[in-house]
Amino acid sequence: MKSYRKELWFNTATRRLLINITPDVQRCVSESGIKEGLCLVNAMHITASVFINDDESGLHQDIEVWLEKLAPEKPYSQYRHNSYEDNADAHLKRTVMGREVTMAITNGKLDFGPWEQIFYGEFDGKRKKRVLVKIIGE
Amino acid sequence: MKSYRKELWFNTATRRLLINITPDVQRCVSESGIKEGLCLVNAMHITASVFINDDESGLHQDIEVWLEKLAPEKPYSQYRHNSYEDNADAHLKRTVMGREVTMAITNGKLDFGPWEQIFYGEFDGKRKKRVLVKIIGE
Amino acid sequence: MKSYRKELWFNTATRRLLINITPDVQRCVSESGIKEGLCLVNAMHITASVFINDDESGLHQDIEVWLEKLAPEKPYSQYRHNSYEDNADAHLKRTVMGREVTMAITNGKLDFGPWEQIFYGEFDGKRKKRVLVKIIGE
Repeated sequence: MKSYRKELWFNTATRRLLINITPDVQRCVSESGIKEGLCLVNAMHITASVFINDDESGLHQDIEVWLEKLAPEKPYSQYRHNSYEDNADAHLKRTVMGREVTMAITNGKLDFGPWEQIFYGEFDGKRKKRVLVKIIGE
Repeated sequence: MKSYRKELWFNTATRRLLINITPDVQRCVSESGIKEGLCLVNAMHITASVFINDDESGLHQDIEVWLEKLAPEKPYSQYRHNSYEDNADAHLKRTVMGREVTMAITNGKLDFGPWEQIFYGEFDGKRKKRVLVKIIGE
Repeated sequence: MKSYRKELWFNTATRRLLINITPDVQRCVSESGIKEGLCLVNAMHITASVFINDDESGLHQDIEVWLEKLAPEKPYSQYRHNSYEDNADAHLKRTVMGREVTMAITNGKLDFGPWEQIFYGEFDGKRKKRVLVKIIGE
């Protein structure tokens, strides 16, 4: 069994942002030399997400509006977590979007349907944060 | 290490439907010959879901009503994604329900609690769509 | 390839409770002797959750309030599932929080960011329920 590990780093200019990381993960799969296995990609922070969906800007705006309705950022005082912080909404938004994605690797490639793209979802940005890529297989 | 891969295909008569795929996945586990390992089952489409819950028709109706409250199908115009499409709600519903399930295989079987059943959740059906089963182990 | 399996049991005094199980899972990783691999931790019941977030009591209260807004326990009669049962809300709350977490193991340890902690989320307690830990790797 082989294993591979890499960190991907981000520092977004805005509090919230969705970034397509599919090419980065594909590069990891190639570097790993693993032909058959599983690839785990997870946020290493609890106010960010890794998820799979469509790379379509209208949908990304819909997700922003929808998450703000399900778990609004403001008023900050509505959350008990926000006594010294202001990011309780980011913890909840990441819960909706998910921490991680596990993907199959087949013939040395991400085994994806036609529209699947991997995103880093930042919900409390403007600082350095990272994603873990771990691959095991043969 | 052994690996196994199979696609399961669906074509639902209705836009939304929940289908119990536990027997299909169990058959894959048997076919794989893998005794100890991990089994990943994921939707290969971004408007469908694979999740684990109860096979109880009342609950399935509750899920339908609940998802329609969290991410209503109509009016289509409420979503920016719906300029050429009408399925933005399906992208959001699948986000709530999740893309994938990772399960343990022990002694050649799905290592499940008493009520766990695997479902394919279709949220934009009436067309051919598929699920990936990938198993690794020994 | 090595594999490891353990069940963790819980019996909460209240209907809903979040329990930090990170030390229990770390002990499993040590016991397994696996240095590089993947660790799956999942609820074996469909009214409970395993998820990763912050161990901060204010946030845990926010999660309780938020889940009650998204999927209220009462009135019980609002759910079709509740003809002989009263736990439909627990099925929905667990859907939001997730069934399972897959984590990387690197150098014999959970490969975590600084604030990641694993929780058992009980949404229909006051009875014996369990979590599965499965680890594969080398």
